[in-house]
Amino acid sequence: MDALWVSDPANVRSLSGFTSPADGKVLVTRQGATLYTDARYTVQAEQESPLPAFIARPPATYDHAAPGLEGLRVGFEAESLTVAGLEDLQAAWPGVTLVPLRGVVQELRAVKSPGEIRQIREAQALADRVFGEVRPLIRAGVTEQDVAYEIESRLLRAGAESAFGIIVASGPRGALPHGHASGRVIEDGDLVTVDMGARLGGYHSDMTRTVAVGTPGEEMRRIYRAVYEAEQAAVAAVKPGVRAADLDAVARDILTAHGLGEAFAHSLGHGVGLEVHERPGLRGTSEDVLEAGMLVTIEPGAYVPGLGGVRIEDLLLVTEDGHEVLSRSPIEEL
Amino acid sequence: MDALWVSDPANVRSLSGFTSPADGKVLVTRQGATLYTDARYTVQAEQESPLPAFIARPPATYDHAAPGLEGLRVGFEAESLTVAGLEDLQAAWPGVTLVPLRGVVQELRAVKSPGEIRQIREAQALADRVFGEVRPLIRAGVTEQDVAYEIESRLLRAGAESAFGIIVASGPRGALPHGHASGRVIEDGDLVTVDMGARLGGYHSDMTRTVAVGTPGEEMRRIYRAVYEAEQAAVAAVKPGVRAADLDAVARDILTAHGLGEAFAHSLGHGVGLEVHERPGLRGTSEDVLEAGMLVTIEPGAYVPGLGGVRIEDLLLVTEDGHEVLSRSPIEEL
Repeated sequence: MDALWVSDPANVRSLSGFTSPADGKVLVTRQGATLYTDARYTVQAEQESPLPAFIARPPATYDHAAPGLEGLRVGFEAESLTVAGLEDLQAAWPGVTLVPLRGVVQELRAVKSPGEIRQIREAQALADRVFGEVRPLIRAGVTEQDVAYEIESRLLRAGAESAFGIIVASGPRGALPHGHASGRVIEDGDLVTVDMGARLGGYHSDMTRTVAVGTPGEEMRRIYRAVYEAEQAAVAAVKPGVRAADLDAVARDILTAHGLGEAFAHSLGHGVGLEVHERPGLRGTSEDVLEAGMLVTIEPGAYVPGLGGVRIEDLLLVTEDGHEVLSRSPIEEL
Repeated sequence: MDALWVSDPANVRSLSGFTSPADGKVLVTRQGATLYTDARYTVQAEQESPLPAFIARPPATYDHAAPGLEGLRVGFEAESLTVAGLEDLQAAWPGVTLVPLRGVVQELRAVKSPGEIRQIREAQALADRVFGEVRPLIRAGVTEQDVAYEIESRLLRAGAESAFGIIVASGPRGALPHGHASGRVIEDGDLVTVDMGARLGGYHSDMTRTVAVGTPGEEMRRIYRAVYEAEQAAVAAVKPGVRAADLDAVARDILTAHGLGEAFAHSLGHGVGLEVHERPGLRGTSEDVLEAGMLVTIEPGAYVPGLGGVRIEDLLLVTEDGHEVLSRSPIEEL
């Protein structure tokens, strides 16, 4: 490639420092890099980015870049640029060979800098504090939305925000792996899955705890213990050099042995950073290999329609000699 | 077209009822429509959508659809589907002619149903109530983030959420059209621009008020009055049959006459619905024409780097004989 056209918002931020979620692009050439955004962000671009900025809307943006790109091979982000976006670039840059690329900047982002690790550590510490405050409020008679409100308002009060729609899935709703908090009233005997994260300074944390209200039935406690066993085994296996697919298998084999292979309906985990879900992908089909400096979740679960579900998720930093579990909220024993 | 592959999340919701923000697709053929999502959403898809659902991840999703599409022309959403997504479809459907389309479902969504109008009306009523409660708290000594917290926590408490990152831009930060709430302490004499919306049942509201803390300087009051004049003139012109580009010109001509043409650095407004920004686009280059049942914002502004800025935004329903202003929060006289 002679140049790279960066359109993915998290990649734009990572390369430029510009934090606007949707309206920046970066062109990297052998001569340097330029930030493109529009007039709503003139001041913000100056304040946030060391890159020279060109303020315009497409197609003026493309016209500005065109002369320097004539005859070159320019890579673009196929996983971010829409087909319409590509058509517009092709029309504006007829003399340019546009080459689809996947995951170039994402791969650079998978290993975090010390500053990024500090930021995510801080986000997780806040999430742990908030979860500790809210745990006693999870009891029979309150709704899932009450619990989510207590979490989200505390995150806001601390100057953060929720990293994603908070999942509070109680009783039979636990069978929805991504069951956002509803109006359901939590009942005695429920398991309640709470999946939450803080977004602080643009970086995310991510953690799930499944907690008991009263004494759940024996089958749900059996499922809980199986998920816990799978989670702890996968956490213990995290270190540099391990294949993501092998980690996924560690947890999946344990759940399969408990008759819960089919009930583990998603992958083991994912990287966390400027996005809640980023490289590496911890799933059976992944070719990623763990490296020191990666931040990953380990989050096996089991979901049984009509009955309920369990997920336990920790956030880990891969270190030179193994890992550090950043999420410190206690995991209950059932 | 023989069929349409729908990948835009708001379009998927609009056609299927399925509310997951990112993981559904709809295939519309002459025989009917099918919802595709993965196993995290099995139960949710059943509960929310009347469409038959096929539960799988790509490429199994594409393989399921392939036999019925052989030899057909299938439209896809060029503004939503990424280049990588198209490459995957091409690989999975070698016998299919894939045709890029722009804005097909978006155009259907521009005119709202009575149920959608009711939902947006309710979202705006909540936003008005919250703004009324928070207006007295906007005073010298509080930070922009304090104001945003008061708004957002009230929205959450009401079972809604913020439609977008709340903009609270005070004093010189008013020059940032999209200046999200910062730690800046509001001072006596500041103008404070507050741009907020509620998201309720998936639908959005959107409104901006610029309020005075103490008595701002004469130049900022002059700018305020010019924006107010432009806003009211554009609002008055809203009715079925009016070209969006002409509406934009109404406001832009007034601001230009006040020497603020360059300072009006964005378009006049946009449609609001399942997305905060959707069709119609109210800007000079738009070819959209207003129709009864559209929901649009009218939001001229003026931004002067180093000095400050003003924006006033109302949310309007286009009615058979003109319009109804849904945003009821008082606009201050300065």
